[in-house]
Amino acid sequence: MKIFSVRGITQSGKTTTIENIIKELKKRRYSVGSVKDIHFEKFAIDQEGSNTHRHRMSGSELVTARGHYETDILFTKRQPIEEILRFYHHDFVVLEGVEDTNAPKIITAHDTKEIEERLDGTVFAISGRISNVLKEYKGIPVINAMQDIEKLVDLIEKKVYEKLPEFPAECCCACGYSCRELGIKILKGEAKREDCILSEGNIKLSINHQEISMVPFVQKILYNAIIGVVSELEGYHKGANIQIKVGER
Amino acid sequence: MKIFSVRGITQSGKTTTIENIIKELKKRRYSVGSVKDIHFEKFAIDQEGSNTHRHRMSGSELVTARGHYETDILFTKRQPIEEILRFYHHDFVVLEGVEDTNAPKIITAHDTKEIEERLDGTVFAISGRISNVLKEYKGIPVINAMQDIEKLVDLIEKKVYEKLPEFPAECCCACGYSCRELGIKILKGEAKREDCILSEGNIKLSINHQEISMVPFVQKILYNAIIGVVSELEGYHKGANIQIKVGER
Repeated sequence: MKIFSVRGITQSGKTTTIENIIKELKKRRYSVGSVKDIHFEKFAIDQEGSNTHRHRMSGSELVTARGHYETDILFTKRQPIEEILRFYHHDFVVLEGVEDTNAPKIITAHDTKEIEERLDGTVFAISGRISNVLKEYKGIPVINAMQDIEKLVDLIEKKVYEKLPEFPAECCCACGYSCRELGIKILKGEAKREDCILSEGNIKLSINHQEISMVPFVQKILYNAIIGVVSELEGYHKGANIQIKVGER
Repeated sequence: MKIFSVRGITQSGKTTTIENIIKELKKRRYSVGSVKDIHFEKFAIDQEGSNTHRHRMSGSELVTARGHYETDILFTKRQPIEEILRFYHHDFVVLEGVEDTNAPKIITAHDTKEIEERLDGTVFAISGRISNVLKEYKGIPVINAMQDIEKLVDLIEKKVYEKLPEFPAECCCACGYSCRELGIKILKGEAKREDCILSEGNIKLSINHQEISMVPFVQKILYNAIIGVVSELEGYHKGANIQIKVGER
């Protein structure tokens, strides 16, 4: 799953850029999901007085509204982006206005001042209104999403890598870098996605069908715990493929 | 996780009953979630013209709207209730108007004709408007959710059992009954939740795709080894379905 974000202030062309990107990705037959961060204090998707709103007001901590053509799962808290992404299993996920991520980033802007406010090593393209007057800024391509959407999506295909974990530097750094630093190096062409040593891991863990990332240290503990028991059973041999399912007790 | 549904036609007191139940369950310090089935053809929670609506119209297959105080995951399809319940980890989940479930059921009704239309072995209580004039119907208690909510929730605590699987009869019946039949027997006091034999063997092991039988003693050792590690990881909660794959090292 490849993730990227689009960042920029209101009216800089953010949603229009995303609309065009999604359409072009779909045209190229990718599955696409998206997340929109809403920076409007009073945002509430559910109408006051609706039955689901009444559930929530009574104390229901998770409310789902299921209609004929949609299923809306309404968490009563702001969730971290990593939690949200667990629900996604798409080729590409576009994040609009999301800040708690180190994913590769497209900036939309009116002018270079707005670019500068958001510029960092995770930026691989610039778009939005400024693309009418600029073609490049400090080596980063500025692309018009209305006229040159194919060029922009070519760049997305080339630059955006399989999602990295988002561990804090103190938790992993097993590749020699923090996840954020490795991401920046991949964009620069100075490292590869495979340099994330978690990719090598020979043990995969899912909880409720959602894959859980484990730092190498934890991978090893779980691996040793399992092999320690299973290797005593008939049927086991070194290098065997082992699958374990644990359900409700 | 204990699941029950409330069923009845519009204006029979369904949502009011649920509101009172949720409040009382919360008062008793249970965690509570809920699902509302909306039988209104044109239901759509998202406003036309919103940015998330624009994402969806562009082809995004899963859209999340994240505000300051909520996270709304908007699936573009009607999902089966079993899929929806995977997002829930609450002591109780109340289903309003949901039909694709065999969970224990409370009927709300204006009159006995409406009761009869919904009466089956899964019904353990009746409420709604009819509770103003009736105290029992064919041995099933009729309870007013406004005046006697404690009595109604006492009954919920007594009757509603830990969620059973919802296998079709041809898939399991290992206990001698279909999941629906076993549920009905539990409500009648003729069977116990533990009669579901899937509750016993809560861990399955395959080596090179062949299932390995383990005596309960070994099951427990492996179970404890895994839970001991996994329960320390984010994403874990009691009763989670865990899947682990170990390949060649």
